[in-house]
Amino acid sequence: MHQTFDAALEINLLHANQEGADRNRDRFDEWDITCLNVMSSPGAGKTVLLEQTLAALNQDVKIAIIEGDMTTELDADRLRKYDIPVIAINTGRSCHLDSRMVAGGIHSLEHQYDPSLFDLVFVENVGNLVCPAEFEVGEHAKVALLSVTEGEDKPLKYPVMFREADCLLITKIDLAPYLDIDIQRIETNVRQINPHVNIIPLSAKTGSGMEMWFNWVISQLKTSNKSLLVEV
Amino acid sequence: MHQTFDAALEINLLHANQEGADRNRDRFDEWDITCLNVMSSPGAGKTVLLEQTLAALNQDVKIAIIEGDMTTELDADRLRKYDIPVIAINTGRSCHLDSRMVAGGIHSLEHQYDPSLFDLVFVENVGNLVCPAEFEVGEHAKVALLSVTEGEDKPLKYPVMFREADCLLITKIDLAPYLDIDIQRIETNVRQINPHVNIIPLSAKTGSGMEMWFNWVISQLKTSNKSLLVEV
Repeated sequence: MHQTFDAALEINLLHANQEGADRNRDRFDEWDITCLNVMSSPGAGKTVLLEQTLAALNQDVKIAIIEGDMTTELDADRLRKYDIPVIAINTGRSCHLDSRMVAGGIHSLEHQYDPSLFDLVFVENVGNLVCPAEFEVGEHAKVALLSVTEGEDKPLKYPVMFREADCLLITKIDLAPYLDIDIQRIETNVRQINPHVNIIPLSAKTGSGMEMWFNWVISQLKTSNKSLLVEV
Repeated sequence: MHQTFDAALEINLLHANQEGADRNRDRFDEWDITCLNVMSSPGAGKTVLLEQTLAALNQDVKIAIIEGDMTTELDADRLRKYDIPVIAINTGRSCHLDSRMVAGGIHSLEHQYDPSLFDLVFVENVGNLVCPAEFEVGEHAKVALLSVTEGEDKPLKYPVMFREADCLLITKIDLAPYLDIDIQRIETNVRQINPHVNIIPLSAKTGSGMEMWFNWVISQLKTSNKSLLVEV
């Protein structure tokens, strides 16, 4: 996070954010909604992942999206094509979503829809491998994406995100043959930081690994319907 | 940057950083050193760019590196192989270098070497497409990297970095054939944010575009020796 030249202020900032996150989570719980916070560097494939997840699960799982971007609604517009509620939050100069911004998104959801009808809210965070990991927004689990193009050493160099993740998706594995990269080495580096995280290598382009991801999402639902699980 | 829930505090923070950056730049000027601040998302290729730049220019240009990473000295160790001063700064939880950290790096340089012997200091920032752009460190120019794997829309979605850049390197163009990407579209999107920025598409793997980059670096030197320019 940004150093504020004042440790006490930083603690207050994170403490206020945490209180807000707890309130958001209480709202989600009240409605039996699972909230997943999706985070990564810019361009690791968060939006295309959500597009394909909507295409696969939208018939059986009632999904809404809270979409964070510094500027533009480019990603929000891509997701709106799936005819679901997409609440766009422009963070301006802020490098991450915080619990106050997401509370605003929940407020919009509550006033435009009946929130008790939803099973799942994805929060798509600002593209940043550092800051979003430190600011809970009320999620029940954190999903981090790391593209194979980013390199094997990233879990060691940016440990906060990898320590916090409940599910780590290694994306764009279709590009691995063109790179000097070892996916097993990425996994070993991730496990060094976070031994028990779920790791799913996948490609949204070829579909490889996507069903494992859909199953993981379904396993997180409070209103879980085992019949949705796909055999992989 | 992180919202601090206090606009006046944010202004003070940036103001204090700017004063420190101006002091750092005064030191560099005193020694006829050009300082270039190299910034991008994690894995866009900053370190390999610097490795190849050292290999190409190290004979003729006296270079030192200030290397920022949250944790580890993995990148610093890669650059130390070129037998030049590499001052590693671990930022801990901080998502960017600030002018105070770089002042510490300058202090080390000054006490271990004769700084007046150097022509060029590269600052390799923490991998983050958002925050480093807002914190000057005393550089004379800002170099931003965007990998083709990150997607065409990133200049529009993360405008601060692209607005601030003096030189934009579109990296990993050797991967373009495997992606659904139009490099011309990236350039058009960058120019929408920053019409006069230097844009150099390149590949550190194939060498394509690298000599244009070396020439740009040489053109920035205070002690510029035109004989170093390569015909491209």
